[in-house]
Amino acid sequence: MKTILVLGGFGFIGSNLLQYVDDYKLNAYRVIVFDRKQNHPFGLKFKCVSKIYKGDFSNREHLEVIFQDNKIDEVFHFLNTTVPATSSNIKFDIESNLVATIGLLELVEQYLVKKFIFISSGGAIYGDTNLNNLEAIDTFPLSSYGIVKLAIEKYIHMFCKRSNISYLILRLSNPFGRFHYSESQGIVNIALRKTLRQEPVTVWGDGTGTKDYLFIEDFIQVLMLLLDNAVDNEVINIGSGQLYSVNQILEIIESFEPSLRWSYTDKKEFDNIHFQFNTNKLRKYIGDYEFTSIDIGIENTLKWLKGNTLL
Amino acid sequence: MKTILVLGGFGFIGSNLLQYVDDYKLNAYRVIVFDRKQNHPFGLKFKCVSKIYKGDFSNREHLEVIFQDNKIDEVFHFLNTTVPATSSNIKFDIESNLVATIGLLELVEQYLVKKFIFISSGGAIYGDTNLNNLEAIDTFPLSSYGIVKLAIEKYIHMFCKRSNISYLILRLSNPFGRFHYSESQGIVNIALRKTLRQEPVTVWGDGTGTKDYLFIEDFIQVLMLLLDNAVDNEVINIGSGQLYSVNQILEIIESFEPSLRWSYTDKKEFDNIHFQFNTNKLRKYIGDYEFTSIDIGIENTLKWLKGNTLL
Repeated sequence: MKTILVLGGFGFIGSNLLQYVDDYKLNAYRVIVFDRKQNHPFGLKFKCVSKIYKGDFSNREHLEVIFQDNKIDEVFHFLNTTVPATSSNIKFDIESNLVATIGLLELVEQYLVKKFIFISSGGAIYGDTNLNNLEAIDTFPLSSYGIVKLAIEKYIHMFCKRSNISYLILRLSNPFGRFHYSESQGIVNIALRKTLRQEPVTVWGDGTGTKDYLFIEDFIQVLMLLLDNAVDNEVINIGSGQLYSVNQILEIIESFEPSLRWSYTDKKEFDNIHFQFNTNKLRKYIGDYEFTSIDIGIENTLKWLKGNTLL
Repeated sequence: MKTILVLGGFGFIGSNLLQYVDDYKLNAYRVIVFDRKQNHPFGLKFKCVSKIYKGDFSNREHLEVIFQDNKIDEVFHFLNTTVPATSSNIKFDIESNLVATIGLLELVEQYLVKKFIFISSGGAIYGDTNLNNLEAIDTFPLSSYGIVKLAIEKYIHMFCKRSNISYLILRLSNPFGRFHYSESQGIVNIALRKTLRQEPVTVWGDGTGTKDYLFIEDFIQVLMLLLDNAVDNEVINIGSGQLYSVNQILEIIESFEPSLRWSYTDKKEFDNIHFQFNTNKLRKYIGDYEFTSIDIGIENTLKWLKGNTLL
């Protein structure tokens, strides 16, 4: 049984990992959560969680106590202190994400952690480099958020290489699904919740740009496949290969919730218009894994939302 | 006549630029120097320099006053606050180089500078990615110094793209030549000066790894060719394509100064063993420019050193 530390364990992706462990891997993982909050924002309890540490990610002491108290085998770094839209404060972005992650990597090295898993961002990292973004090409992020993600990837490589820690860097496309409670990120999440609240949706730009969407439950299964297959020391694009425009997403939601209303506003500079990337490397490791169709993913998310009156 | 700001104007590369302007371009450039020192460390005076600002690069006010007092057309950012060997203090590296450069870029944007030229580092950026490093590949620096250089490149791209400032990012191989007065960087510089002081040279590793060496006067001429040809918005590897081992360099120096003595010590982790890179992009812009042979470059540097009793 492995002891894993999940930073951002009560966030969107963290909650999905915990739910998956509860459902399928309860005997494999003892989970320690580090989060800004002492309790899950929906009041959820996960059986796999043995301890919760509430703290400030930038405060080294808040992190170090976890490694002092527990023998951590693997670290899952799922924590962001900013989102693309708020990373215009570049110095805060660098301090709270980059420098704080370096502090974490120093602890990972010092306390002999065996594996480090980091969620990076496909959309933010690739900028407008190419329409078929490969992991091996040089990238030019359009936002500080993306540059900081890229710099974190490089420091992970540097630390892990010099100390023989295995790592996985996963560049996700646009994840959606249950436990996504952000008020500012993710068109599926925002549109579904606004619809349920009878509020109109505002679309940046004309809604025609297409992006790769990833159902979060697929992501967790893919992550488990990569871990089970001992895939190590790789940067991997994780996407479904399914491209949809915001307009198409809204039309799918409208097919389930005809009351949906939306309007258009100016494009924001940090938002890529088109985004797709090459997932050949991922396919090499996950074979013919079949991704959930966007209709089923959205329907599933809508059902989950309707069952959660807390939102 | 253009007004250019040279940050690190009294450093190795900066001094060479000023000397070149004095010799060949005195009617083209009015130069403003920003440096840690109020005067050139060798007591040199350059005719092209109209003002000298002494300051701390991390202090925004020290920089902003320059832009308030002068209409700057182009900025040449040749300043480093760390070297690979000292960048183990990652937080200092990030604060003093990365965050400080972002402060500079904010001023460049605010005061409508037209062009931004940055000296990056081939050796530090490329790590051990490949033996034929192209600008377009993703790189994994082995040191924080290299990661910070890479992150600076990305922020330059982000700022310049969004504000239509033209930029040139030049990834130099291993420059050597006059005005290199560092006590810790550059095997040619260190070996020549130790020889003149009758001190033995210490070689990291066994001295067989080969690297691309670039005579600094070639670099300045190549930079001028790129500027004259209006090459813009590019990241360009700048190397002579001439690969030499440290042992070969020492043997060349020994041929001029038979008193040279050297010994070997362990390899440092941040020092790449072999380093070469692809200069096809550079060749596209500079045609058949002929680089100085290493023998002539070293002989020339030795003569210059002997003429400078201050060293």
